[in-house]
Amino acid sequence: MFAVLGSSGYVGSYFRGLLTQEGIPWKGIPRGDLYDSDRLRLALREAGATFVINCAGYTGKPNVDACELHKTECLLGNGVLPGMVRVVCESLDLPWGHVSSGCIFTGRRSDGEGFTEEDPPNFSFRQNNCSFYSGTKALGEELLQGADRCYIWRLRIPFEHTANPRNYLQKVMTYHTLLEAENSLSQLEEFVRACVDSYRLQIPYGIYNMTNPGSIRTSEVVELIREVGVSRKDFRFFNNEAEFMQLAAKTPRSNCVLDCSKALAAGLKLTPIRQALRQSLERWTTQAAGKGC
Amino acid sequence: MFAVLGSSGYVGSYFRGLLTQEGIPWKGIPRGDLYDSDRLRLALREAGATFVINCAGYTGKPNVDACELHKTECLLGNGVLPGMVRVVCESLDLPWGHVSSGCIFTGRRSDGEGFTEEDPPNFSFRQNNCSFYSGTKALGEELLQGADRCYIWRLRIPFEHTANPRNYLQKVMTYHTLLEAENSLSQLEEFVRACVDSYRLQIPYGIYNMTNPGSIRTSEVVELIREVGVSRKDFRFFNNEAEFMQLAAKTPRSNCVLDCSKALAAGLKLTPIRQALRQSLERWTTQAAGKGC
Repeated sequence: MFAVLGSSGYVGSYFRGLLTQEGIPWKGIPRGDLYDSDRLRLALREAGATFVINCAGYTGKPNVDACELHKTECLLGNGVLPGMVRVVCESLDLPWGHVSSGCIFTGRRSDGEGFTEEDPPNFSFRQNNCSFYSGTKALGEELLQGADRCYIWRLRIPFEHTANPRNYLQKVMTYHTLLEAENSLSQLEEFVRACVDSYRLQIPYGIYNMTNPGSIRTSEVVELIREVGVSRKDFRFFNNEAEFMQLAAKTPRSNCVLDCSKALAAGLKLTPIRQALRQSLERWTTQAAGKGC
Repeated sequence: MFAVLGSSGYVGSYFRGLLTQEGIPWKGIPRGDLYDSDRLRLALREAGATFVINCAGYTGKPNVDACELHKTECLLGNGVLPGMVRVVCESLDLPWGHVSSGCIFTGRRSDGEGFTEEDPPNFSFRQNNCSFYSGTKALGEELLQGADRCYIWRLRIPFEHTANPRNYLQKVMTYHTLLEAENSLSQLEEFVRACVDSYRLQIPYGIYNMTNPGSIRTSEVVELIREVGVSRKDFRFFNNEAEFMQLAAKTPRSNCVLDCSKALAAGLKLTPIRQALRQSLERWTTQAAGKGC
């Protein structure tokens, strides 16, 4: 029995959809049971959990700037909660996975490559260069160092074919002005499948960058959108990051390239980024698919 | 009615003692009500709180090294909890005070003076030079930036005349080997009185360095101990901080000088450090005083 923390959230809805579709029995753990280790332990026992997925966390709506105004919830959901789940899962000897984020990195490695799982975060409180959100996500991973039987799955800018305010493709199509930047991204359906597969395939525990191979610039995403014909509007861009920070953002954004070769080598399926984007755009719909909600 | 969070702790016991002694009605808030905002709000309402004191937090036993092994509890107690108390107190329009720590600083200011309340912490995650404990304490203060009707009282290495494993004087007398360092310190009875007085005197809300004026080196404390005659043992010192870090510590220690002139100017009573230490040593006792426990 899979127990899912945060099953009612955006990422959670994709875990629900996949598990239901694959006939894997799962239970959602109520939000009220998350932040008290005794209640969480009891809830996992009562659910008969054999594997735990933590996709609960605080993201900030409509974007990461909101986390600057809700630091307490952000620190609790992203910093403390993974640590608490670790303590409880270790006490029950349960394997588990934590949905982390690639936003704890910025740019590329000094050698020009994408960041691997061996590289320490470079966009965190420790570097004093980050948003509060990224800082708490990095602290969350810090609390999992040395954890037993734990997967850390790094999601990075989710996109998919169904319109949603959290979907990167919808963001690109609706933002008034765009920031040109290079990023690795995660196709959300592939992401949750790769997470579940990491347990099904019994790949080694540890950190995995769960991004589609490669990276892409915002302007290339826009070209793809126009080429596939989902939108033909005249996309506008900020002149540079300074203008973006001045006009549109309250806190620094992570733009980064991750290396997902560890996940690929472990046998997880992640489609190259341009192909994955094209597939999502070709299936683009504004209708929610009723993913086992 | 004063509501005290963390009333059963070491610092809390001194708040209890003072409030009882002064005939100020107070209630302790049970630990189980602390980490859920709804329960905390209800508990404060039911207590009829008019002023809230948060002296709950995670310190680590026997010392700050233990926080490196209990990061989740440390981040929850020192980082998240003050933010949660803020949210609840602001929603109830209650004035309150938070026992913070001077350990978010190291050394002296670059101009040679002690750190004032205007100086940003320089021993925190943001500088990537600190213990996990100091990092969480600094985050706790960060969550209180812009708080309404909130005192932030910085305690720094508490000492007093009653033997206790948390008492700096006892630590100095029992540690096998000492680290020579210069610090500001807080006489604990004066500290809690100054905290309570800040509310009674209605001094402006904000941060206060609640340390005894001045600073003192470990070797001078040892001289005082020998001079007053509480211990005449042959105190041993590490040759330098590197040896201390290598042999006795797992995580960096804060040693720092704070400027308490803001508290003094507001009318709070804090005795110069050498005099305060001498007074505590002259009253030295290994008997607990039964402070309203």
